[in-house]
This record gives sequence, C-alpha cells and structure tokens, in this order.
Amino acid sequence: MSSNRPYGDVNEAFLDILRDVVGSEHVRTDEEARTTYGADALKKGHPADVVVWPGSTEEVAGVLRACSSYRVPVVPRGAGTGYTGGAVPSFGGVVLSLQRLDKILEIDERNLLAVAECHVVTGDLQKAVEAVGLFYPPDPASLSTSTIGGNVAECAGGPRAFKYGVTKRYVLGLEAVLPSGEIIHTGGKSVKNVVGYDLTQLLVGSEGTLAVITKVIVRLVPLPPTQVTLRATFTTIRAAVDAVVDLVRARVVPSALELIDGDSLDAVATSLETRALAPAGTGALLLLEVDGLAEAVEEEGRRVEQACRDAGATEVLVARDQATREELWRVRRALSLSLKVLAPLKINHDVVVPKGRVPELFDLIARLRATSPGVRIPSFGHVGDGNIHVNLMLDPADPVAVASARAAERALFEGVVALEGSISGEHGIGFSKLPFVPLELSWIEISLQRRIKAAFDPLNILNPGKMFPE
Amino acid sequence: MSSNRPYGDVNEAFLDILRDVVGSEHVRTDEEARTTYGADALKKGHPADVVVWPGSTEEVAGVLRACSSYRVPVVPRGAGTGYTGGAVPSFGGVVLSLQRLDKILEIDERNLLAVAECHVVTGDLQKAVEAVGLFYPPDPASLSTSTIGGNVAECAGGPRAFKYGVTKRYVLGLEAVLPSGEIIHTGGKSVKNVVGYDLTQLLVGSEGTLAVITKVIVRLVPLPPTQVTLRATFTTIRAAVDAVVDLVRARVVPSALELIDGDSLDAVATSLETRALAPAGTGALLLLEVDGLAEAVEEEGRRVEQACRDAGATEVLVARDQATREELWRVRRALSLSLKVLAPLKINHDVVVPKGRVPELFDLIARLRATSPGVRIPSFGHVGDGNIHVNLMLDPADPVAVASARAAERALFEGVVALEGSISGEHGIGFSKLPFVPLELSWIEISLQRRIKAAFDPLNILNPGKMFPE
Repeated sequence: MSSNRPYGDVNEAFLDILRDVVGSEHVRTDEEARTTYGADALKKGHPADVVVWPGSTEEVAGVLRACSSYRVPVVPRGAGTGYTGGAVPSFGGVVLSLQRLDKILEIDERNLLAVAECHVVTGDLQKAVEAVGLFYPPDPASLSTSTIGGNVAECAGGPRAFKYGVTKRYVLGLEAVLPSGEIIHTGGKSVKNVVGYDLTQLLVGSEGTLAVITKVIVRLVPLPPTQVTLRATFTTIRAAVDAVVDLVRARVVPSALELIDGDSLDAVATSLETRALAPAGTGALLLLEVDGLAEAVEEEGRRVEQACRDAGATEVLVARDQATREELWRVRRALSLSLKVLAPLKINHDVVVPKGRVPELFDLIARLRATSPGVRIPSFGHVGDGNIHVNLMLDPADPVAVASARAAERALFEGVVALEGSISGEHGIGFSKLPFVPLELSWIEISLQRRIKAAFDPLNILNPGKMFPE
Repeated sequence: MSSNRPYGDVNEAFLDILRDVVGSEHVRTDEEARTTYGADALKKGHPADVVVWPGSTEEVAGVLRACSSYRVPVVPRGAGTGYTGGAVPSFGGVVLSLQRLDKILEIDERNLLAVAECHVVTGDLQKAVEAVGLFYPPDPASLSTSTIGGNVAECAGGPRAFKYGVTKRYVLGLEAVLPSGEIIHTGGKSVKNVVGYDLTQLLVGSEGTLAVITKVIVRLVPLPPTQVTLRATFTTIRAAVDAVVDLVRARVVPSALELIDGDSLDAVATSLETRALAPAGTGALLLLEVDGLAEAVEEEGRRVEQACRDAGATEVLVARDQATREELWRVRRALSLSLKVLAPLKINHDVVVPKGRVPELFDLIARLRATSPGVRIPSFGHVGDGNIHVNLMLDPADPVAVASARAAERALFEGVVALEGSISGEHGIGFSKLPFVPLELSWIEISLQRRIKAAFDPLNILNPGKMFPE
C-alpha cells in the first residue's frame, strides 16, 4: 500500500478478524486472487492485498467494521466488467467480492417489482422476470456477465435506454452497508416515496464510493409482446441523424436506436469475413427497434421506415420474426470484438451530447481522425440518447500513436463538454477518467461532492481514489 | 425569532443589504406580506420577518450570501400550494419568493427537453410544450397554480404517475444556489450522465433544504394522440383493486388509475347537488385512462373494460371524446373541494403502500373509522401507485374529534409502514409530518441524512426545522 496515504496495513491481526467474520475459506491472499481481483475490463489498477467473499449482508457489515477499525481501504466488486477501474483498488487493501450474494429473492407480479441480492447476473434476472411476462429493460452490453448491483453502482445504460431509460429509473429501493458497518434501507416497494432525501438515487451511479449495495428492489414493466427491427443505411452520419430527428418529430419512440459509423462497419466486415454487411458507400447504419402491442408496432414501424427513406436511406430492411431480427442485430453484437482487428488496444469512451448535436460530435471525431497519426477511431452507439462510444484503436507499442491518442482523448472530452454533453454517459469515472472531471464539474461542485462523500465515509476507506480528483 | 436558536436577527443592517441586492421595492416587512408568506395550504407556521423577491439567479445568490453572513434562516418559496409547510418558516427569518423567475427559456423539439426558470407555473409549461406536440406528464392537482420549481423541490406526483412516473423521472438538470451563495449546475441536457454523484435527483424532493432551485431542465415525451377514459363502479374496494390487479396481469398500463371510495362519492354527490354520480350501493369507483396511438388505445380500452367486468363492475362507462371524458373526470376534480361539506377541517395524508396491499390499507381505514368518533375518513387516490389520500375530516372545535384524529393519524402512519409503505407519497414532510419520520427511517438513516444536509448547509440556515426531527 502506498506509504503516503493515511491507511492502516493489512496485517495478520486484521486478516484474523476477516477470517472470523466470513470464514477462512472465504479469505484469500494468494497471488492469483490478488491480481485477478486487481483489474477489470480496463486491465489496469493495483493488486488487492486480500480478497474476501462475505456470505450475507451481516458479513459485509463485519468486513466494513474491520476495515473502519484498521483504516484499510476496501473496494466492493461485482463481476468486474467495468471499463473505468471502478471495482479495482487504487492502492491495495481489501477487495470485497459480492459473488456469494446471488439470489433472486422475490418476483412480485402484483406489484410489478423484483427483489434481488446484488450479485444476481442482470441477464438472469431478465430471463426470470420475462418468464412471467414482465420486463426489466436496462440492457448494458455486459448483461450476460455483469450483475445488478454493479449495474446500479455504475448506473448502466444500453440500447433500450432511449425508450425505457437507464438503470436509475428502475431502482425503487436498496439495502446497503455504510463504511461504518451500519446497514441502511433506502426507498422501498412503493413507486412513490418522498420521506427524506432520495438516497436510492444518490447511491445509483456512486461507483461503490458511498456504501456497499447488498440488495436491490427493481421496478418492472409489462413485457412488450411484439417487436419490429429495422436496419437502414445512409451515405453520411448527417443523413442518419436527420432520420433520427425526423422520427422524434413524427413522435415515434423506438425501443432501440443504434448508430454505427463506416469505420466500425469495415471492422465488422473484416472480422466476420462475410460479404459486405451494408451497401458499398455506407457511411452510417441505423438499427432501430419498436416494441409494444402489435397494432401500435405495425404503425410505428411504418413511420420509422418512412422517416429513414425521407432522410435518404440507401436501403431499409424490416424484420418481424425473431430469426431475421437476430441477423440484423448481429452486426451490432459483433462490434466490440470486431474492432480488435483494427489494433490491439481499444480505449472506449462513452461520451454523450444532446442528440441534436450528434452531427457536431461526428465532425469533431472526423477532425480527431485527421490529426491523430496511428489511431483509428471507429464510433458507434446509442444515438437516441446522444451517447456515442468513441473507440481509440492503437498499438500501445507505438509511441506516436500513444501520444496522439492521449491528445485526441483530451480534445474529445473538451469537445463534448463544449457541446453541452458529458464525458461519460454510462461507464462512470473510476480512476481512468479522474483527470478530466474538472472539464465538466466546477471546483464548487467537486468540493460539494467530496463533502457528500465524507457524510457517508468520513475515514475515506470505501473505494478511495475514484470519481473525484484530489 | 425563537431565542433558543443560534440565528442572527433581521436587523436594519441586514435589511439594507437585502435592499441593495434586490432593490428596495422587492423587500417587504409589512404585516400583510409577513403573514401571507408565513403560511401555505396547511395554514400553519410562523410569519416571515421579511419577504424578498430576487429577480435573477445572481440576486438569489446575493440574498443567500447575506443570510449566511448574518446567520438568518431563509425559506425558498414557490406558489405556496404545499400541504406540509415546506415553504413556510419554522421560526421566522427570510422568505425568498421566487415569483420573478417565471420565464420559459427554451423548448427544444430536437432534443425533447424544456428549460424553465423555477417559477413557471407547471400547467403553463404543459400548455406550451403541448402546443408543439410534446408532453410533460407530471400532473399534481395544483398544476394550474403550483410551479415547476416547487414541484421539483417536493417531487410532485399526480394521476398520470402510474404510467409516466413522478416529477423526478423528468428532471434532467438543475441550476441551484447553495446556502453559501455559490451557484451549481447539476445534470444537463443529456439523458445520460454519470459524472459525479446524481445531485439532480438528490435535490428533487429535498424540500428546499439543500439549495435554492432556480432553473430546471425537464425531459419531454411525445404527446399521446389518443385517450380513452373509463369509469367503473364496484360494490367494494376489494373488487376494484381486483380489477387493478387483473389489469396488471393483462399487462395494460393505464395513464391514470384513480380510486374513489363510497364516503368520498357521498360528499361529491352532496356538494354538486346532482343526481347520484354512481349506481346505488357503490363502494368504490375507478377512473381509468389509456393513452397512445389510436390502434393501441382501442385494444387497451377493451382490456380495461374486460378486467373491470371480470372483477364484478356494476357499471362501466367508456368515453372517447373530450366532452364525455371531462364529464367522467368531473367527479374526481370536484373531490377535494366537495369534502368540505363533511366537516370544516381536512387533514389530508398522502400515504402509499405497494399497490397489491391497497385492500389491507382500506381494512385499516375501516378500523380507524370505527374507532375515531367525530371523524369522517373519505379516501381516494392514485391506486395504481398504491398512493391513497386519506382525509381526516373533523370540526377543530370538537375536542373529542381532535383527539381521535390525532390517534387515527398515528395509527395510520404506523399501519402503512407495517404494510411496507410510506407516510408520504407526494406531499413531503415539511414540519407537519416531522414527528412521524422515525416510524419510517431508522436513526442511522436520519443521522446520515442530517450529515448530507450539513454538506450543503453547514450553518443550517436553509429552510431549517424541516424534513428531519432534531
């Protein structure tokens, strides 16, 4: 552990307390555990000193009490699928894996809600509620591995957010443990509750810096019975965004509205070794989905097709059955992996701008492409939300590429803030985006946030070194 | 001002500063202003020492800086339509009326959002956005007089919350002034933003105790083109709730789902001096509305009618045109005023339970009726959200009635907490519900909330004596 920080050591006395609390088989200090739990999808960070697996909320509380007594930093961790280091130690200490808290406790059809322990995989929760005709909409790309607790801690998004909203709109209540070991309950099973400050929403997106989320009550909605998926291709980004704006004007709210740029399509085509996925000359591809009652979906599908054609689509495919829909979605699902054919390192930034300003964002990306030797910048994302994944693809062994990626990153963040946007729409800050936070928040606002952090965590032991620059 | 509180006096030096900041014509210390601004719909509280009307965010900041320097309590105030004393001084000081900040600044059709100063009347904002085919759903009963800033500060609800959600789901960003006079901006024009803690949602529902909200960015949705309204009558509350549960099972989400009990119907019938509004023997009336594309609305209307009939409705009326819809809504809109025929004093409690437990709530209300001499308890509300307005009607000059109302109030709050509900779904705590907060929140949770308050307001000058018991 860094010696210039006011933290205690992970010594044998401390480890003995952890073993007492969770059982010695659930405490590991071996090299493998320490490094595995010392990184996430970003593959950076500091190894843990010790990894613990509590088996209940009370054991989580016991671990936190021990960390408070010994002033040892502690990092709560779900599935570790994050891109910003949120679940990774900044300087050692305890990684608190929530892996054993993995039960769905309740699916309540009468009240349209589910109660789950934090480490239920989001995709499993979705399948369970869909089996009774209900729907939990948030669908981050990681949903088959990431957990509901992690999704809540990061406020995960996904393609369906345009119509249905991000994770925060579905969280009704939480059980969480403060760094002191005190257990709190926020919100509840009612959709309305104005007693006290909204701690539920404060904890959503707090990246494990305020409390350890152990249980989640989520709101469900009826499962839409019908979907229609459309794929439209355009020669330019601007034409695709025009189609999106026309849709908004036609008062249609698609359940998904994904934009993929030409660079990204090239990568998918190469990677899948398939015939061209889109007509030659395609500069932008839109994937759109409408859902709901069959009667409404047919009408909305027609409006979507019309809006795309009016905006100059070169081709519009419409899929009504599941197999054809899957085929249309294939290009989108293959995207992230496909980009690896372009360069070994991907720096994935989830910037967001008001959707009407997406063409300006792509103008900025075009300027960055022109001024960033050694870096490819395929970009795609949730255009309905103005949330675009801008991927800086480079060879980390090439110093020119590394330098120009660094400059492009800062120019990108400065640019989105100037466009009234945000440097992160769904991945969070973790430690990877720390230096850029002052581009978006004033020091008055940062200082206020630090005071809120201190209200929860006066010793600064819970996931320190995240979210705010020192 | 109460002498046992550590606050400064409203002396001439302090008043001179206020006059410098906002202009002397916008500072009043006369009796009329002090008492008018010393009460809300609850008609209780403490007169202001001085009322000020700042004309800009900067002037709000100047007033707050002066209050900080002189340690004078300051209460932000919108239209003063609240039921819990949120906008009323607990012990004098400044009432900061936001009346002059009343401009709609932007309606952005491309990005589906509006920007408004805090004192825009919510109904006016709705009309303005509906004129361009957009929709701001939250519809508190006070919408023709209450303001968007007040709605945000209290997290207002309304009938449409079942489908569309309460105010918090529509607030994208805020401009607000801290008690120190520092101006902050939270959230923004993007629907996704995970940079820093979600201060926007923390301020929503904070009852003016953390910061003074001066500007609001709200999310809009397309205006639904078609509505169908249905009125169904039942002999019992349980049958009506069965219909609601059947609807949920049929995966229909009405845009309004209002329940009115027999006692309330009697009051409306008396007050309107009209023929019976419902068949004889009606114990419960449901008002339901579905909205959306015409094709879907027809189908959903059929499902609603069927669910009501299956649950034993004694009569189902269906209204497709505006005039007939208005007639069906008339009974609901006349409710609040009509109750006055029952007794001179109405104590209106907006309790909430998970909707499946509404019959248990009405069982509790029946017990309270049987054990509360001198008190009538007509009840109605947003049954889709489990949010029922329980009205204790009594003659305040009757000491027996006053004592039994007081006992009924506590029993009601204890009961809803036992039913996994909340003592307030949309009116807030203010000072009127302070004594009951510990029924719902633990002292650990209350203490945490007080620390958050201190992070914003270390001198405790902003709307003190609200939300949390000392």
